[in-house]
Amino acid sequence: MNKEKEFIKIIKETLNLKEDNNIKIGIGDDAAIVSGSANQIVCSDSIIEGVHFDLNYFSLEDVGWKSIAINQSDIASMGGEPKFFTVSCGFPKNFTNNDVKKIIKGIKSACDNNGGKVVGGDIILSEKIFISISSIGEIYGTNFMTRSSAKPGEKIAVTGTLGNSAAGLKLIKDGIKENIFSNFHLRPIPKIKTGILLSKNGVNCCMDISDGLHNDLINLCDSSKVSASIKIENIPVSSELKNMFPDNYHDIAINGGEDFELLFTFNDLPKGLLDEIIIIGEIKEINSNQIEYNLKGNKYTPNFNPWRHFE
Amino acid sequence: MNKEKEFIKIIKETLNLKEDNNIKIGIGDDAAIVSGSANQIVCSDSIIEGVHFDLNYFSLEDVGWKSIAINQSDIASMGGEPKFFTVSCGFPKNFTNNDVKKIIKGIKSACDNNGGKVVGGDIILSEKIFISISSIGEIYGTNFMTRSSAKPGEKIAVTGTLGNSAAGLKLIKDGIKENIFSNFHLRPIPKIKTGILLSKNGVNCCMDISDGLHNDLINLCDSSKVSASIKIENIPVSSELKNMFPDNYHDIAINGGEDFELLFTFNDLPKGLLDEIIIIGEIKEINSNQIEYNLKGNKYTPNFNPWRHFE
Repeated sequence: MNKEKEFIKIIKETLNLKEDNNIKIGIGDDAAIVSGSANQIVCSDSIIEGVHFDLNYFSLEDVGWKSIAINQSDIASMGGEPKFFTVSCGFPKNFTNNDVKKIIKGIKSACDNNGGKVVGGDIILSEKIFISISSIGEIYGTNFMTRSSAKPGEKIAVTGTLGNSAAGLKLIKDGIKENIFSNFHLRPIPKIKTGILLSKNGVNCCMDISDGLHNDLINLCDSSKVSASIKIENIPVSSELKNMFPDNYHDIAINGGEDFELLFTFNDLPKGLLDEIIIIGEIKEINSNQIEYNLKGNKYTPNFNPWRHFE
Repeated sequence: MNKEKEFIKIIKETLNLKEDNNIKIGIGDDAAIVSGSANQIVCSDSIIEGVHFDLNYFSLEDVGWKSIAINQSDIASMGGEPKFFTVSCGFPKNFTNNDVKKIIKGIKSACDNNGGKVVGGDIILSEKIFISISSIGEIYGTNFMTRSSAKPGEKIAVTGTLGNSAAGLKLIKDGIKENIFSNFHLRPIPKIKTGILLSKNGVNCCMDISDGLHNDLINLCDSSKVSASIKIENIPVSSELKNMFPDNYHDIAINGGEDFELLFTFNDLPKGLLDEIIIIGEIKEINSNQIEYNLKGNKYTPNFNPWRHFE
């Protein structure tokens, strides 16, 4: 397939990779050869047109960025640093050289900003665009953070405001393509540095918030066999979210997915790090009420369809 | 998505992974943590329904096997041993638990037979089934085999018979689903052991034959900036292929893809290894005739559409 060779040429040019001692054999052979480390993080995550993105509001560069960022976020949630990516692409028949260039520009930009390098991949023909990325990250030390190690009594914390990505997507779908929240959805920024700090400071239980706080708390509690109590008023939200959605910003923050902040539990953390994170609740012994929400001391029942009264 | 959780449960059960010191954190978190090695091979390869396989003649177990085997073959072509896989799957809405189980059975079987373990992955919704696999392989020593290092005067060799996979596909498409060649197409066997032996014995230039001997010779010659001279009568073909296609088995062997034998060049190899491989030609200084074919001393012009006179 000559188009494939042409695409690979464009990909190599656009990535414009410099010499790197850790990449012994790069793009162009059946496989790459890279330096390994004692313990390394391995994961993969894919996005597909129509399910994870819509070209009516995602530019191809956004697609490229996000495909890498969701993988960088998985590495962040394990406390590692992204090192190498392989990129499997499905492109439709009518895909042009310029389309490829745009996707790779987004990929390169996410790599340059958040870490890691593309060392290989493959291209296949597909009706819908898909990008399936596999990542290798380096982890320092042997404190492996999982989602299954939360213990009763530990504090529950997140690394930043929640709900912006969902608000961005909502407004885009309502026709306001460029809104103050849209980049939170289109170009999320993985929390690499914070993830490394958490791991270095002994945090055992961590994951990234991709499915929304509520759903990911369920994932964490299921894995750790614990329950959680959350103080709604402590969940960090941006002033913009509060202003634009004064009646339901709590519910947007609880349900909104794809913020890619980290969700973790801990007993103690040094002062400097405590200033960077936000405590939102506490892990409890497992009980019939898996996630209990309170707002200023009163039981709170979230609306799990926060956009409903807009529709 | 509850179906995703259910699928992951089935995947874990079907893979039935035993404790392994090299897998510190396995399936179930945002990422896996595995042991690294000084130099490691990284690659990815995908298959998609309708392009690479058709469920009219591929069982779901075949799909699983082949998705891993093509990756194991990439590792083989670099002289390495498969270690870890991440598996990104796109499954349609109506996919059942049993469908997932069948694919994973095929994946497990290819892992058990040819090496490597699944340590992670992701599942997304897709109209067509796709499986995108990323692999990590271990390489011993620092002799890195590429496709760009063939030198004039070197012998060109392959590791086994060619054309069986193409013949299998041809007969299947003609309605003979179960034929003596079909497993060569449905369940190719990667040449892991031979790849390692070639690398250990100083072979510099190697690739796997996925696009057919002719196309892959072009790839090798393009990368190495050389030409090639091939003795048609030396290309290994099975007696079954000769018997069934007496008039055009040469052309089937030259054009047929997906045999996943290794194609490599060398100056010298020990006797024992020479017995396992088949020399089919010689690398030449680059010239206007990139691939020259001879049959018993006479110039031979392959038919690049060997099935044409059947149609």
